[in-house]
Amino acid sequence: MKAIVSHGAKDLRVESQAAPTAGDGEVLIKLDTGGICGSDLHYYNHGRIGAFELKEPMILGHEIAGHVAECGPGVEELKVGDLGAVSPSRPCYTCAFCQSGQQNHCLNMRFYGSAMLFPHVQGAFRELLVADRRQCVRADGLSGAEAACAEPLAVVLHAAKRAGDLMGKRVLVTGCGPIGMLSILVARAAGAAEIVATDVTPFTLSKATEIGADTIHNVAEDADALAPYSDNKGRFDVLFECSGVAAAVASAIPALKPGSILMQLGIGGDMTLPMQAITAKEIELRGSFRFHEEFQTAVEMMQSGRLNVSPLITHRFDLEDAVAAFNMAADRTQSIKAQIAFN
Amino acid sequence: MKAIVSHGAKDLRVESQAAPTAGDGEVLIKLDTGGICGSDLHYYNHGRIGAFELKEPMILGHEIAGHVAECGPGVEELKVGDLGAVSPSRPCYTCAFCQSGQQNHCLNMRFYGSAMLFPHVQGAFRELLVADRRQCVRADGLSGAEAACAEPLAVVLHAAKRAGDLMGKRVLVTGCGPIGMLSILVARAAGAAEIVATDVTPFTLSKATEIGADTIHNVAEDADALAPYSDNKGRFDVLFECSGVAAAVASAIPALKPGSILMQLGIGGDMTLPMQAITAKEIELRGSFRFHEEFQTAVEMMQSGRLNVSPLITHRFDLEDAVAAFNMAADRTQSIKAQIAFN
Amino acid sequence: MKAIVSHGAKDLRVESQAAPTAGDGEVLIKLDTGGICGSDLHYYNHGRIGAFELKEPMILGHEIAGHVAECGPGVEELKVGDLGAVSPSRPCYTCAFCQSGQQNHCLNMRFYGSAMLFPHVQGAFRELLVADRRQCVRADGLSGAEAACAEPLAVVLHAAKRAGDLMGKRVLVTGCGPIGMLSILVARAAGAAEIVATDVTPFTLSKATEIGADTIHNVAEDADALAPYSDNKGRFDVLFECSGVAAAVASAIPALKPGSILMQLGIGGDMTLPMQAITAKEIELRGSFRFHEEFQTAVEMMQSGRLNVSPLITHRFDLEDAVAAFNMAADRTQSIKAQIAFN
Amino acid sequence: MKAIVSHGAKDLRVESQAAPTAGDGEVLIKLDTGGICGSDLHYYNHGRIGAFELKEPMILGHEIAGHVAECGPGVEELKVGDLGAVSPSRPCYTCAFCQSGQQNHCLNMRFYGSAMLFPHVQGAFRELLVADRRQCVRADGLSGAEAACAEPLAVVLHAAKRAGDLMGKRVLVTGCGPIGMLSILVARAAGAAEIVATDVTPFTLSKATEIGADTIHNVAEDADALAPYSDNKGRFDVLFECSGVAAAVASAIPALKPGSILMQLGIGGDMTLPMQAITAKEIELRGSFRFHEEFQTAVEMMQSGRLNVSPLITHRFDLEDAVAAFNMAADRTQSIKAQIAFN
Repeated sequence: MKAIVSHGAKDLRVESQAAPTAGDGEVLIKLDTGGICGSDLHYYNHGRIGAFELKEPMILGHEIAGHVAECGPGVEELKVGDLGAVSPSRPCYTCAFCQSGQQNHCLNMRFYGSAMLFPHVQGAFRELLVADRRQCVRADGLSGAEAACAEPLAVVLHAAKRAGDLMGKRVLVTGCGPIGMLSILVARAAGAAEIVATDVTPFTLSKATEIGADTIHNVAEDADALAPYSDNKGRFDVLFECSGVAAAVASAIPALKPGSILMQLGIGGDMTLPMQAITAKEIELRGSFRFHEEFQTAVEMMQSGRLNVSPLITHRFDLEDAVAAFNMAADRTQSIKAQIAFN
Repeated sequence: MKAIVSHGAKDLRVESQAAPTAGDGEVLIKLDTGGICGSDLHYYNHGRIGAFELKEPMILGHEIAGHVAECGPGVEELKVGDLGAVSPSRPCYTCAFCQSGQQNHCLNMRFYGSAMLFPHVQGAFRELLVADRRQCVRADGLSGAEAACAEPLAVVLHAAKRAGDLMGKRVLVTGCGPIGMLSILVARAAGAAEIVATDVTPFTLSKATEIGADTIHNVAEDADALAPYSDNKGRFDVLFECSGVAAAVASAIPALKPGSILMQLGIGGDMTLPMQAITAKEIELRGSFRFHEEFQTAVEMMQSGRLNVSPLITHRFDLEDAVAAFNMAADRTQSIKAQIAFN
Repeated sequence: MKAIVSHGAKDLRVESQAAPTAGDGEVLIKLDTGGICGSDLHYYNHGRIGAFELKEPMILGHEIAGHVAECGPGVEELKVGDLGAVSPSRPCYTCAFCQSGQQNHCLNMRFYGSAMLFPHVQGAFRELLVADRRQCVRADGLSGAEAACAEPLAVVLHAAKRAGDLMGKRVLVTGCGPIGMLSILVARAAGAAEIVATDVTPFTLSKATEIGADTIHNVAEDADALAPYSDNKGRFDVLFECSGVAAAVASAIPALKPGSILMQLGIGGDMTLPMQAITAKEIELRGSFRFHEEFQTAVEMMQSGRLNVSPLITHRFDLEDAVAAFNMAADRTQSIKAQIAFN
Repeated sequence: MKAIVSHGAKDLRVESQAAPTAGDGEVLIKLDTGGICGSDLHYYNHGRIGAFELKEPMILGHEIAGHVAECGPGVEELKVGDLGAVSPSRPCYTCAFCQSGQQNHCLNMRFYGSAMLFPHVQGAFRELLVADRRQCVRADGLSGAEAACAEPLAVVLHAAKRAGDLMGKRVLVTGCGPIGMLSILVARAAGAAEIVATDVTPFTLSKATEIGADTIHNVAEDADALAPYSDNKGRFDVLFECSGVAAAVASAIPALKPGSILMQLGIGGDMTLPMQAITAKEIELRGSFRFHEEFQTAVEMMQSGRLNVSPLITHRFDLEDAVAAFNMAADRTQSIKAQIAFN
């Protein structure tokens, strides 16, 4: 069995590993697709993400789908051959956070592909993967490529739930990477009256329009592009901040209505924020982190056709071309979501 | 009639001005008490507050109470001799924000003692003041000193409403100036299970204990005082951030539970915040700004004895000693709220 | 100028009245379309609605749109010839409820066509109507028939806002009259994962499917149609109750999840409810009444094409055929929304 | 070991049973106090509660506290001799509701003393009781009588949490049995500005005043007692409905503000409600059912002295006088909470 292993910055290898076996309540998944996420890119490019540094080789990857190859004892809801979207979230189900419905804050979380713990929690970019049955959602009717988008879509559905009702609201999205793009898609599907998106590359902005943004602004070309939205204390009810760039937040604040909601999805370390304006406008800056029950909703919304992620999947590479895939995923001038085919 | 006028940094004068007359729907107030607020101190010390600079002499003051000396035509709810708490908030009542119940965001607000507009909006530290009847709340049973606390108390009640239910919650208060102190008082009255307060002077912390804090920490002496509260992802459900100091926020974040609420009341310009932790913990940072209907609630809660602000009123100066009053108000080693007697 | 006047039960007349003139801040509207609402039908059929009985002739109607024929002094946002959706809601803008953003609860409301006050508040089914400019929303790009749906659509948008986020939720709609139908439309546009609708006529249920219901049940044919949804304490997150029939509520309760929301839109006088189950399931029964800022949102959502009400407008009658229009509006076996053409 | 067993209506017996032993993760509790609840009284008086009928003898009781007599393997947080408040709520911790933090809706709940399942879930009025360690909260500093009030207090804390922020709010309580009384206590501790209570006996109303109600009304003597509160569409922000009587709800509706919250705590089977008024006022009727994490909060709030339940414990009987205890508990003219001493 082959796996995509990071050995440090810019040292990504496709390696052979021993094949696993499904135990009680587990299934063996023959991977179909793995989508490359921004955190994978951090490990690939820098050998670390913020404070979490690679101290041993780690399999990357957590946006995955595949077919059931084998069912361990006690698995009844899945059968061999089923396509499954596989959640990388593995909470303990017993700590206080799990018991209060906040599994994304589990004290014992083992999320795929994270160097936060040591030994590291290995990731899921591997031809064969053993998963707990609770991680798997049947994805009949979807392609493997779509099913592998359940994870980032769940991230955005979780954020949208935290943002509340979007029907008839005016929404700003700063940063049109995959998460920003999915925010546009979800806001549109949730009935937003108007969606304005900003980014720094023509390619992403053109995609933003294609999937539903009403207006786009290239803030690399015009840093003051949002200024016209600041009349009468601002126009937007909700900001999905997906850039992780402090300047993006600062330039957006004047365009936000008093009492508006700033969903912080982009992760960018320390940020210097205009707190006087945030306080005076009574803005609610809400962090959003991962997801839980939204993983199943993501699959269902794609199956019913209400959320169509296909336009965002711009590239697909063979497993042996993993390095090329990672390089393409990092190139915002021509890609949104790059995926790897494992089958 | 005498008034307290700022002519720039450290240039505070008690001056004579022409006495005003009450018009339709207005009352003439003979001022009893004026409380000195942090924003008054900014004008006094620096001739400015953030971006708003004094460009002409301005009467300071907006925490006031006095007796009705005269009622203009159409005023029926007040009579001569009544003690009234006078709200410094004068929204237009007709803009979109006023009509949506967000009078604190009124597009045409004329809040007493602000250099944000030019000509400046003159303040209320004056022996005689004409106020709209909608600004006045009868304060029978209170002293003038207490009634003059209605304004800062309303600020905190507004923040507490935005923080939501506090019953049985664990509350952290960073910064024990008057607003932090009132946050302790309100959190206690709202049923908080535990209140921990931090500040940098023994005097304020001792007062914090006196009015209801369960535990106090001097973060000037021990910058890591909150570290023990960070087990299991944190202890506090709500933070009332009343210091406006970025370091206070940063050191509090590890002590906040996932999903907790950070009420930002302190105003400190740009702040560099640990956004990765805020995002990962899904903290909700909510700005809070001024108040509206909470002004009346503040008076009523003091009248019923459920909120007792008296321990916070540490000093009272005669009008002619205004400069001494301002200097005392600025001294956190021995004062919480300093007030000026106008009668 | 002709108007549609109710003189009591089954006594509807098209009568001539004096033409009005626009005053300060007012516009003269040449009516294009009037939609017939359930409350109009109550006055038509019974001469009353609940406790409010006709004591003098009253013009009916409050779902209206028309063209601006004349602008009074001070009207700048509209010009002669504009198509306007006209809100029947005329709050005072000054009472405590108006000032708190709850204009739908205005103490001095003068909603068109209501016998609640005496003299009655005359309605808007008249060739010429004078309206305050605040009642008018420009409806460029819509037909008069669509613009006249802004009012019932606003009712449902208000209820949906009170119901909260619907993205990915399972929604039940009981009663497929115009309000139930618009609830389906709005829930679909707000991202509901699944919509199940019940009614008692094949025509309405067929329309429900046409506009977006996933599953329909004729509860006249099968009173237990919702029983299969009650496994595991129920399936639905939200119920839009649009029938006003106690039996509909009672049969829906077992199909509602613990903690679900029951939006009560149907108005049916006293209702006997299974309170033990409502309490044990912690259901939130929320009344919803009229609307305010949602009127403008309704126009905008129709203009952008995100909400298409056209399939619901099943009939259009000439003014002289008003009686036939009312009879058709009352016939659920073949109509959803019947409208009257005034032009 | 003796236990209090119901053999049907009016057939209550103190019987000997075999003593149990603590297993893994369990503790053996030597009961100190058992409080009699309304549901116990239903079984005692009628042999049933609503649809749930006694089909075999059942030990009653679920408001309990006692001392740890023995700790099974794996119990570290408790030691022999500790006073523990014991929660009667025994969710499975694994079903979908438990995993979403809604343990009170557990699909496999085994709440003490309920005939809902067969064999019935036996209750806790027994000298020796084996409890899971997760049921036990150390109650140092409380009397056994107080600790046994943790359960009904948790019920009310849960309802208060569902009601939201009460600071400065006007609260109405209908029905001053133990749950109504605790609602007064909690609303007071949560900062309610005004509390008005209604009941039908002078004794309960006098107690209501003693523990914090501002105003009381005997609705047996004056059915229209709430009429004066209906000016300007009503006075109260929140109603804690603890009577379970439809007439109490109906007479309270006019006194509730538009948008107010009606917490339904009283359980009274089907109720005929004025739905037109509930809809027009946009009242939110919220069921509230049992509790979960509030059990621990209840103990903590009593320990800190913020909630003092002692005045509500009006009677204490010896175990052998259980029948007298039940009769007294049913007599609202002289008792609030009657308890049984097991030690």
